[in-house]
Parts: sequence; structure tokens; C-alpha cells
Amino acid sequence: MTKQKKAGFSSKKQKQNADPQIWGIHAVASALTNPARPKKHLYLTANAAARISEIIEHPLPKYEQCSPKDIDKQIGPAHVHQGALLITNELPTKEIEDLPGTDRIAVLDQVTDPHNVGAILRSATAFGIKSLVMTQRNSPPLSGTLAKTASGGLEHVDIIHVGNLAQALTKLGKQGYHRIGFDGAGEKTLTDLSAAPGEGIALIFGAEEKGMRRLTRDHCDDLARIEARGAFCSLNVSNAAAIAFHHFQI
Amino acid sequence: MTKQKKAGFSSKKQKQNADPQIWGIHAVASALTNPARPKKHLYLTANAAARISEIIEHPLPKYEQCSPKDIDKQIGPAHVHQGALLITNELPTKEIEDLPGTDRIAVLDQVTDPHNVGAILRSATAFGIKSLVMTQRNSPPLSGTLAKTASGGLEHVDIIHVGNLAQALTKLGKQGYHRIGFDGAGEKTLTDLSAAPGEGIALIFGAEEKGMRRLTRDHCDDLARIEARGAFCSLNVSNAAAIAFHHFQI
Repeated sequence: MTKQKKAGFSSKKQKQNADPQIWGIHAVASALTNPARPKKHLYLTANAAARISEIIEHPLPKYEQCSPKDIDKQIGPAHVHQGALLITNELPTKEIEDLPGTDRIAVLDQVTDPHNVGAILRSATAFGIKSLVMTQRNSPPLSGTLAKTASGGLEHVDIIHVGNLAQALTKLGKQGYHRIGFDGAGEKTLTDLSAAPGEGIALIFGAEEKGMRRLTRDHCDDLARIEARGAFCSLNVSNAAAIAFHHFQI
Repeated sequence: MTKQKKAGFSSKKQKQNADPQIWGIHAVASALTNPARPKKHLYLTANAAARISEIIEHPLPKYEQCSPKDIDKQIGPAHVHQGALLITNELPTKEIEDLPGTDRIAVLDQVTDPHNVGAILRSATAFGIKSLVMTQRNSPPLSGTLAKTASGGLEHVDIIHVGNLAQALTKLGKQGYHRIGFDGAGEKTLTDLSAAPGEGIALIFGAEEKGMRRLTRDHCDDLARIEARGAFCSLNVSNAAAIAFHHFQI
């Protein structure tokens, strides 16, 4: 374990602010154990170093010991960074054509809130959802708040960015995915649906408030609703996704 | 519909900052349709007034028309208030003794993040969870970020604050609730468990990171885990709760 004394923080600040940042104990710990994750610069408080060291169960890479306020200065004071910040680059993304057609994937139609996408990545990891297809536009950056909320999930789920979601859904259908879109007005309920052995399942969720766009809905094999018999049935998209992932896990 | 011109904003500011605040279109709309909810002062932008008017389907009460920045000044710039702010008081809380023993309730053991408790209230409302038992200490205030995230759920779920959670769980057991605590190391899985007809179910969740305290676990009839066969099985508490509420809804 190599430590550097507090130094060079402000001199590198300008450039580093343009690079993707990952903060939070679990997000940084998972990033450090992902061989594919670029590790440009690691900032840790003494306490965070001890906690991450315990989680990753092998020696920490070279890092710069700093105070919580040093990290506040880099990322702004509104974030819960828990004393850990990694300056990185985004992971290489994949293509629809790389998908096997037999697994579980999720598709997000312009879900914009990084908390929601992060929470979806976290439960995707827990329930074995291997890939997440997102629109290039109106999706949050794969770092910062999203990475923190994903709590390590960003290192475990392949991200596929697409320019045209309807075209992507057509391809997914051809590759063997049963495309299930979630919509409060869906004809079937989640519990009506199950996967045939070996069948690929794509679970599709629309944006906060607006839901799926019409063209997205038109490219689903089934529209399903999560049955909710309470006072109102408006579910947060990450909660809806968690319920669907749990139902369909292999 | 009565409108007042922009006035008196700063003069009342000091006092109002001490009162609970509810912001966000859905949170304010639900608060306005709850007869039990105190309505001290309502601030709306023209756009928010139009949207809320559409949601609540009856005339708006008296409000002060304002700009988004006026609301920023009251609640701070970091919040997504969507042009709607209600100054209010907390709703009257209930007691464990008021519970019927036959419904679905949730119990939170020091869940501190207002986003999580808010999301839990939202899905509790969707899935017919009638009451939420929380610790007096280490629980977030029933307003602000929690109310926004609950998206109206705060008006539909009775909150019960208790000083001693273990004692409360003992009472819940005596009142007929089957107490199911969620723990990653639980012996049973969620899908192993179901409710007998007419049986009350209390679903108990622990704090972020720490989970349930030992004494809380000791007062459960069953410890259950949500089966997750992915790369790691750490679920956000609101996602875990949504899955459990969906499973047990009546």
C-alpha cells in the first residue's frame, strides 16, 4: 500500500473535473476490483481506506490520502462521498449484437434521474440482469450520483447505449428476446407472465411521469402492469424494476 | 380560486421555515385533497397551479402565486419543488393500540434516509400497506424530501412513532401480527412465506448498511431473505420493501 501525502489536489482539479468520478465506499470498492475499470487517481480518507481495504480483501492500489473536505472541493458539498473518490473513465460499452438472446436484460426509455438508474443497476446486479440498454439522449452519465446509488452495480451490468430505441427493440426481438414493457394500463399482470426455459427476457421501463413512448410500447411483445391494489398505483420506476427483476430472475 | 399577488414572502419566511414543508406536484396535490392535512400557506407557480388543478379535479384553495426562485429561497436551491410548496403541520400520529391486527403494516428500524422512507411510503400506498411504524429517533422528518419522494404516499399511510421498537414488536405480536423481519441471512425466502386468510402481517426492515438491530431481529416470528442470485445481493431498502409489499398485498 503506497500513500502519498496531501499534495497536488488543486493543480489537477481542473482536468479531473472533466473526467468521470465515482464516489462512495461500495461504488469505489467495486470499481477497484473491476479489472476493466480505468483507475486514474484515487482519493481516500484514512477511514475510507480502512473500510475499502476490508471490503476488497486485497491490498489497496496507490492512493492519495485526503480529508473529506478535499473531496467536497472536487465534487461539490452536496454529495455523500464517504471519504472515497476515484477519477476514472467510462467502461467500454457493448452493442445489441453482443447479447446472447437467452439471458435477462433491462431496457430504459429515457429514464433521466441518476438515482433511479443507479438503483436499477443495483437491483439488476442482485437479480442477475446482465445488460442495461439505454437511450444515448436523456440518460444520465455513468458516474457520480448514478454510480453511488448503484452501490457497485455499475461494474457488474453491461451498458448498451442506443440512438434509436425502437430499432434496438426490433433487433432484440430478432435475437430471441421476449420484450415485456411495463405500463400501468398493461393488459397482463406481471404474475401472469413467466419465461420459457432458455428464453431471453427484455424488461422495458419508461421515463418517470411519462412512461414509455408510443413507439417503444409498439415494439413490445407484451404490455404488463404490476398489480397494485392500494390507494394509488403509481410506482417509482426503480421499485417497479426491482419487482420485475425479482419475478424473472433465473 | 383566489389568487394573491406576490407579497409577504420574506416577512413570513422565518416562522415558516420552522414549519413542515411539502413540495412537489404530486406531494402537494395529495396533501390538498387530504382533509386531515393542515394547510397554512400554499405557494404555486402559474404552471404548478394548472397541473395541480388538473390532478385534484376540484378548485384550488387560496394560494400565493410565486416564481420558482421564490420557492428556492424558502427551501434552498437543491430541491426539485416543481413550483409547488405547502406550509403545513404534521398529521396526527397513531398508536400501536389503534391497529386492527388483520392488515398489512411495515416497520422500519432506524431507516434514516428520507429518500428511502419516502419511496417506501409511495410503494406502501400502491400495495395497500396501511401503517408504518418508525422509531422516534433516527427517522427522518415527515416533510420535505421524504414527502416529495413519497409522491403523495404520506397522506395515505398512518405513521406510528415508537420510543422502543422491541416493545412495539411485542405488542404487535400480541395484536395478532405475524412479524417477518428481512435479513440477508434469513432462513426462509420471501416466496416461502404467505399469509393465512385474515392474518395480519408486519414487514420489518432494518437501516441502510446495518440492517435490523439484534433486539429487533429477536422480536420477529420469521427472518426472511429476498432471494437474489446475482453478483451480489445487497438491495436498497426501498426496493426490498417494494418486493415484499407486492408479495404480501391483499
